[in-house]
Amino acid sequence: MTIAPRLMTGFPAPEQQQVTIANWRTAPFSRWGFQNVRELLPTANIARSDSPTSLPSEPRYLDDVTFAGLDGAAMTLPQGLRAIDTDGFIALHRGRVVAEWYANGLTPSTQHLIFSVSKSFCGTLGGILVAAGKLDPDALVVSYVPEMKGSVYGDCTVRHLLDMSVGIEFNEDYLATEGSIVDYRRATGWDPVPAGAPAAPHLRAFLTTLKHDGTPHGETFHYVSTNTDLLGWVYERACNKPYAKILQDELWAPMGAESDAYIAVDSHGAARAAGGICATLRDLARFGEMMRNNGVSNGRPVVPNDWVHDIRKNGDAAAWSRGKFTVLFPNGNYRSKWYTPDVAREAFSAIGIHGQWIYIDPQAETVIVRVSSQAIPFDMPKDVLWLGACRAIADRLSQ
Amino acid sequence: MTIAPRLMTGFPAPEQQQVTIANWRTAPFSRWGFQNVRELLPTANIARSDSPTSLPSEPRYLDDVTFAGLDGAAMTLPQGLRAIDTDGFIALHRGRVVAEWYANGLTPSTQHLIFSVSKSFCGTLGGILVAAGKLDPDALVVSYVPEMKGSVYGDCTVRHLLDMSVGIEFNEDYLATEGSIVDYRRATGWDPVPAGAPAAPHLRAFLTTLKHDGTPHGETFHYVSTNTDLLGWVYERACNKPYAKILQDELWAPMGAESDAYIAVDSHGAARAAGGICATLRDLARFGEMMRNNGVSNGRPVVPNDWVHDIRKNGDAAAWSRGKFTVLFPNGNYRSKWYTPDVAREAFSAIGIHGQWIYIDPQAETVIVRVSSQAIPFDMPKDVLWLGACRAIADRLSQ
Repeated sequence: MTIAPRLMTGFPAPEQQQVTIANWRTAPFSRWGFQNVRELLPTANIARSDSPTSLPSEPRYLDDVTFAGLDGAAMTLPQGLRAIDTDGFIALHRGRVVAEWYANGLTPSTQHLIFSVSKSFCGTLGGILVAAGKLDPDALVVSYVPEMKGSVYGDCTVRHLLDMSVGIEFNEDYLATEGSIVDYRRATGWDPVPAGAPAAPHLRAFLTTLKHDGTPHGETFHYVSTNTDLLGWVYERACNKPYAKILQDELWAPMGAESDAYIAVDSHGAARAAGGICATLRDLARFGEMMRNNGVSNGRPVVPNDWVHDIRKNGDAAAWSRGKFTVLFPNGNYRSKWYTPDVAREAFSAIGIHGQWIYIDPQAETVIVRVSSQAIPFDMPKDVLWLGACRAIADRLSQ
Repeated sequence: MTIAPRLMTGFPAPEQQQVTIANWRTAPFSRWGFQNVRELLPTANIARSDSPTSLPSEPRYLDDVTFAGLDGAAMTLPQGLRAIDTDGFIALHRGRVVAEWYANGLTPSTQHLIFSVSKSFCGTLGGILVAAGKLDPDALVVSYVPEMKGSVYGDCTVRHLLDMSVGIEFNEDYLATEGSIVDYRRATGWDPVPAGAPAAPHLRAFLTTLKHDGTPHGETFHYVSTNTDLLGWVYERACNKPYAKILQDELWAPMGAESDAYIAVDSHGAARAAGGICATLRDLARFGEMMRNNGVSNGRPVVPNDWVHDIRKNGDAAAWSRGKFTVLFPNGNYRSKWYTPDVAREAFSAIGIHGQWIYIDPQAETVIVRVSSQAIPFDMPKDVLWLGACRAIADRLSQ
């Protein structure tokens, strides 16, 4: 086992420990960066509930749960958590915390960046807005955001954004050093604009520049983060409120969050709906538990039951099979920004790069959350390991 | 009365309403900017107390309190508050809230930027660290921050920083468009670096470049913000903790703050001890009330009594008389980052540009806090009006 290097010690930290906007999403700097996003970027607060949903504790011994490790050999849960760079892990069974584990400086009150788990918040929020009559999933995006006329989004619907089935020309290659994703990151403010490079447009302006790739909307699962940022913008227009405030008022506070969350914003106040939420492990567990309970938190309906049902049952397997994520989940699907990794099982998941996961197994009455600082954004062997771990934990808990 | 323009409405706001890092401290944009610093800059949290100090309410009718307005004619308190662009106002008598007033979107839970009122937090915190044996006011700054060797700070003491008596070459002209203050603001990240201009050093690196102006340290009151940023750095080295955490652990939580505060940080995590704190009006009132009670909050000593006594009694009138602020307070002084506006009265104050004030009158058992968005950073007629208002309120309350 390697000893993790120290970060941000001393004032200022020595250069090899100094986390800045130029290195914060690369290892080893990301370990500090993912826990301190607000010290690196402008952010908007998402205020907690005045009456948090209780999260009772009922510890279970899980250290002997085993599953296949990276080399295929069996490993235990503590070994597995360390092998995949876990910063925090919590497991709930029937709403009770059966295991909770922190590393790398994370505490129960630390807000960890959850990357694309943010998307599942956005998709869930959509259901609340639809039920409130504020959002029509079948409406054209341009009916909310006319600025999208002439872009790839000119003739697509809110549903296409929700399900990632826009025929967009965008290569979401996290390791690319040029192309659309580089421009995108500069627009969001997550990467600095290098000296001499042209100034970046702000995020909303950037979204209007995106082009069609010729694929009909609705046919193919094509995972592109800008779809979710745009969905956040659609909500803002639908509700006439900033995204962070909508999320706070309609979901975060009503579900009984114990701590504030926050979301990164760009130079013009646009929230990173696709990946910018930071929250505590326990509040993420509350969110997962609410979804397990079909949208009910603390006895109170927050998300419409039928929206959760739709997420769990109506993913488009054909669109999925035409997409590129079959390499990870051959029998999966995606609906309203939630994954069903395998249609043969009931479980559904919110997943973010660098190892962020909410795993919900209704049959096993289990919710598992993990936040991490995996070095490689999309690290398939670690995802496969983790999905195996989640299934093994759920199996143990439902015994 | 003019109607204030709307700001940040729509997604994005129209350009003439859009607040960005390029305009956030200029009117009218500052009205939104001062209440939303975290959406514009990286910030570090300063967590509240788990058991807030109670702030009981006992309303008094103060609308007929009068004082000299900008043209010398008498005006009432409500007129006065509006005339000087007040966003929030609270008055305490014997620890009870007798009046509370919000405008321009401010709420009891909004964290408003307090500019150099932040300095008084820094000076007060110094007393706590001295009593804890962590800080020696008579020690050389370089004994904590050796990087200062060769700069103006190479031979000055912590006390010189506390009392703004460093012989530094720095023109703190808030309206300057070139010179040291422009470089300073870029180093802090508060102003963008224009296209084509050289990259700015980070704040701590900038501090090491500052030069002596030939004036002996300790002789003359010379108000320069970098002294306080450096003092924050001294505390970090003395405590081996980030400034925000020191402030939280030693002052903010112990005094019983009800809400989190936060402080702006630069690209390398250096806190703007000189001017970057954002806090709610009521927590600022708790801070003022603690100072009125000689450092005791909710029955618990937080700041050493002798440090508060020293602030109130030991300001250097001779150094003050040699400085430039005599134009505002002819018989004033400054001690550990608190002003005594007039030695003939007992009152002492924390003051920040654009109209931020904590006014403490122990004889009248009165504490008054005001946060504002005055257009001009240092607007003497408005400061004179406000000091008159504070005295009139204190006189009324002590009748």
